[in-house]
Formats: sequence, structure tokens, C-alpha cells
Amino acid sequence: MTTFKKTGMQTINFDNPPVITSWACLVGPKEGEGPWAKDFDRILADYLFDEDSWEKAENKLLRETVKLALTKQDLQTMEAELLLAGDLLNQTISSNYAARELNIPYLGLYGACSTMAESLLIGAMMIDGGFFNRVVSATCSHHYSAERQFRFPVEQGVQLAASAQWTATAAGAIVLQVKGQGPRVTCATIGRVIDMGVDDTNNMGAAMAPAAVSTIKAHFADKGLNSDYYDLIVTGDLGAVGMNLAKELFVQEGLVPAPNYSDCGVLLYDGLQGVNAGGSGCGCSASMLCGPLLKKMINGELNRLLFVATGALMSPTASFQGETIPGIAHAVAIENA
Amino acid sequence: MTTFKKTGMQTINFDNPPVITSWACLVGPKEGEGPWAKDFDRILADYLFDEDSWEKAENKLLRETVKLALTKQDLQTMEAELLLAGDLLNQTISSNYAARELNIPYLGLYGACSTMAESLLIGAMMIDGGFFNRVVSATCSHHYSAERQFRFPVEQGVQLAASAQWTATAAGAIVLQVKGQGPRVTCATIGRVIDMGVDDTNNMGAAMAPAAVSTIKAHFADKGLNSDYYDLIVTGDLGAVGMNLAKELFVQEGLVPAPNYSDCGVLLYDGLQGVNAGGSGCGCSASMLCGPLLKKMINGELNRLLFVATGALMSPTASFQGETIPGIAHAVAIENA
Repeated sequence: MTTFKKTGMQTINFDNPPVITSWACLVGPKEGEGPWAKDFDRILADYLFDEDSWEKAENKLLRETVKLALTKQDLQTMEAELLLAGDLLNQTISSNYAARELNIPYLGLYGACSTMAESLLIGAMMIDGGFFNRVVSATCSHHYSAERQFRFPVEQGVQLAASAQWTATAAGAIVLQVKGQGPRVTCATIGRVIDMGVDDTNNMGAAMAPAAVSTIKAHFADKGLNSDYYDLIVTGDLGAVGMNLAKELFVQEGLVPAPNYSDCGVLLYDGLQGVNAGGSGCGCSASMLCGPLLKKMINGELNRLLFVATGALMSPTASFQGETIPGIAHAVAIENA
Repeated sequence: MTTFKKTGMQTINFDNPPVITSWACLVGPKEGEGPWAKDFDRILADYLFDEDSWEKAENKLLRETVKLALTKQDLQTMEAELLLAGDLLNQTISSNYAARELNIPYLGLYGACSTMAESLLIGAMMIDGGFFNRVVSATCSHHYSAERQFRFPVEQGVQLAASAQWTATAAGAIVLQVKGQGPRVTCATIGRVIDMGVDDTNNMGAAMAPAAVSTIKAHFADKGLNSDYYDLIVTGDLGAVGMNLAKELFVQEGLVPAPNYSDCGVLLYDGLQGVNAGGSGCGCSASMLCGPLLKKMINGELNRLLFVATGALMSPTASFQGETIPGIAHAVAIENA
């Protein structure tokens, strides 16, 4: 008989914390020009990656990232027991076609840009629950496939709003195992869908900020921890506008905005890259996690990380029908043993 | 320390099988004119369900179905600890907006028409793994929202191919609990993405049949069972064309096509309803399971059911780019104690 592992309303604890034994991150040219170039495994020379469409390039990006994460542990693709993945494209085609090529048993997810956290926490439950020894959690996004699906084809040259964010071209993959060396997933907080009425499809940060704060608040309430427990609390892709809103909401909610709080959308690019309010897309938080952040954990620069990937559940169809944009955020605690 | 619950390559066993304590099914007018009308909880009078778009009607359909499944156990919505849901619409908007209204912690899935099985097996892992006491697994589809997204707006009056199927207007929701009265989820087999090169978007049954056979073959190999173990093996929505292909593939693969094998797409409508090759959509297998099949289980007409929901991972974007249509299938064993 297993023990009951839930704490409070939204948080689950892992009795035998699954280990992040390897990970990989491939990014596009623009991400490779930013401040973290040396922390990524590979920087693509162009956006097509030897394919004939951006969508096919995105699929290849995810596939190669999963393979590389496994290769780092000298694992063959077939040694992965399960792939948990999702992406931004309609019908999550990058993940579906990657899963077809990889031939790993597959469960598809849709959490928009929260997918890195969603796939990690589901994978951790499946390992701690005793069902699998080795799971791969992964996600990706591609600037040009996302822009033409969600907003305008970039060839159209529409001027971006100051609050708009730059969808990252990047994929991240994490190998979770029941045993091994590496940082461990110790607990996770599952988010609710929060919608404060934002209807501006060029301001995803504002749409997601309340969800991020809701999940972070639930995490600390459920765990009975102070925000200084973590060396870093990092949201997914709120960007500059959303991060400032989140800081205001922390105060309104009676939470101290931790000096150790930041956002992957703010961190991914530097200030001269013309990305307006910052990075976004599933690959934004995935590349920060699977690039610099996990590297800082194995270096001991970080020992306790709360990774809070955020998703704007935006749909052009729903927006055209007058709907507002709901947000969601899931938090995953990653700690050195 | 938990025990290791995996059998063979793709199958997981539940030590303490989660209990299906209640369930609900709402269907559209056409589904209510079929052979199972008395087995559904509610038949809608029209396709708009007092909303102003089909997409909003689909969201309401899912929301009301989840509420009804909980109400049958005298549970308030807030007593559900987690909602696992997905649907066919881009960005899974039916599920996202339903989760917003229901305010239950939420993990979004994309498995196309395999979602009822995917949500059930993930929910069962989370309960047997000791993380939750009460999870709701749910999915839905709507004929008119799906047709205009994937093929043509129905107003266009395009003549359907003989192999085309009718996307069901239906939602199913299942309350899974750690204890209680009801059929139990005893094991599950997670599918691989299989693509045999079908590129006809009007023949989803052919695209999915190899995935169904792959998963069923893996299930029986992993479990060491004969196909007569189950009173009924039912695939999701292969329809008449896909089901006949599946039967041929069973023979090719050395599996005896069980006399107790059928398909929800063949069963959902009668032969006079003008649905060509049969039913499809997430709601097709969900409504057969949450309508007649679970009723037959509590009546004792069925004691062992292998529910194999099938998904065509079809995307208009991928099809326009020349891609073929991958399929996936997940199997869930439901047994009376």
C-alpha cells in the first residue's frame, strides 16, 4: 500500500524523488546570440534545420533534443520507457511526429508554454508511483511556426506591441530516472486555470501573471515554506510586463516578492535583441531550465530551484469569438540531494 | 518504497486498482437518435446548448458532464482534486475553458480521439501511485466545431467519402477514486505512434487501425493473456473501414480476431443514420464507455472490458505539407471486482 503523498490543496510530494540524470537543449540562432550561448548543447545555424518547413524543423528540433538527452546517458532511444511531450502547434504535431520517429510509448500533453513543468511533474509521479524506471519529459517551440499560427506570418512585417514577446526557437528534454546522479524532483504544485479578463493577444505576460502567482501562493501555503527556501524561483515566460505584474500581485496576495525571483522570458535574451517584452513559447522556459539553470545546479551555484512554467491558453478561434485568455502555471521543485 | 508495476514493454499494473465510482455522458441530438439513447444521461435538444457558437457549446458540454459525474456521488466540484482532460479543438479550448469554470487543478492532454483512455490511465496512475484520492478524467467532441476545423464547414455541403466518419457530439467524464463501489481500472497499455502512410484525411479509420492492433498485441504479449480473457475488446473510433482493416491485421499479426471484438465507431449509430463509416471524435468512445458499456458492467452483462481508445493525430497543417497521418491507441482494462 502506497502512502498518501498530497500536501494541502494542489501540491504533491515525491517519497523517492526522481532523479534528473541527463538533459539536453537545442536552440535557434537568435537564442544562441543571447547571454547563455555557452550553456546550450547546440545552436542551429538557421531556422529550417535542413527541413523544408518551419513545422518540420520544429519536429526535428524536438526529436534531436530527446535523442541527445538519452545519448548523454549512453542510452538508446528504445531504452526510454515513455515520452511525455507537448508543444504549441495545433494538434501538437511537433511532439506527435517526434514520437513517431523515436518510437517510444507516448502520452501527448497540451499545457501551452507550461509544458516543460507539466511533463516533468507527470513523469515524476509515474516514476515515484513505481510505474516506470526511465521517462523522458520534453517540449519545444519555433518562432516562425508559432507566429504564423497564433498571430501573423512574420513575412507580413506587422509591428509588434511593446508588450509582445518573442517565441523562442528551442527544445528541452529531461531524462528522469528512479535512481542515478543528478538534481532531484522533490515536489510539484499543479495549477488551476486563472483568467483575469485579459483579451490582448499581444500581452501574454499579463494573461499568465495571475496564474503564476496563484500557483506560487498555493505552493508556499501547501508546503508551509517561506519564499527564501529556494535559491531561485523562476517563472516561465511572463516577460518584462508580466513579471512586473506578478511582483505587484505578490504584494497584493501578502507574499513577499523574493529577491531570488526571476523569469525565463526576461532572462533568455539580452536587452539589445529586439524581443520587446522578452521570450515566450514552450522552448523559452525549457531552454533556460535545460541550459543554464540545471548547469548551475550541478555546479552548486543553485541548490534549490522552484521552476514555475507558465502557459497562456490562447486560441485564435476563442479570441475571435470574444473570449479572454486563460493562464495556467505548474511549479516543480528541483533540489540537490 | 513502492513496487515496480510495469509488465513487459508497454503495460502497467495497478496494485490497488482505482475505482470508477461514477461517470456521466451528455450527447447531441443525433447520438440520441441512435441505439443507445436510454443509456445516456442527457440528450441535447440542439447543437448550440444555449451558447452562441459550437465551440462554446462544446466547452459547456464538457463542463456540465464533469459536474454531473461528480453530482452523482454527491460531490461538489471543489471536491475533485484534479481534472485530466483534452479535446480535438486547437489549443484544446473546450477543456481549458471548462477547467477555468470548474476551478479544479488541471492537466491538459492531447491524444486526439484516444483521450478518454489517456486521461483514464494517467488518472489511475496518479491514484494508485498515492498522489490523489479523487481525479476526474474527461473528454468531448462536437460535430460542427470539429468539421470546420479539420475538414470543411458543414454549410459548404461537401459530399462525404464512404470512408469518412461522423464526429460525435458527446462528452464523457469519469470519477476515479482510491476506494468505493464500481468497476476498477486494473491495468493499462500505453501506445506508440504508428504511421503506415495513410494520407487520406477522409479515412481516419485506416490511419488508426495499425495503432489499435499494435497496442492490443502489446497488451496481450505483456500480460500473457489470451484475447478471450475479456468479455469485450472495444476500439475507439475505427469505424467500419478501420475495424475491417484491424481484423485483417489481427490475422497478419498472429492474433485471433476475437468474436468479442467491436468498435465504438461502429456501435454508436445505427445503419440508417447517414454516418458513412461510423462515429469518430473523442466523444465517440467516451460516450460508448460512459453510456452503455459502464452500465453493462454494473449490470453484470460485462465483467472484463478492454477499452482501446484510438486517435488519428491528423493536422491540416501537416497534411498540407505532405505528411501522412499517424495514429495512436491506449488500452485500459476495466474489471468488476
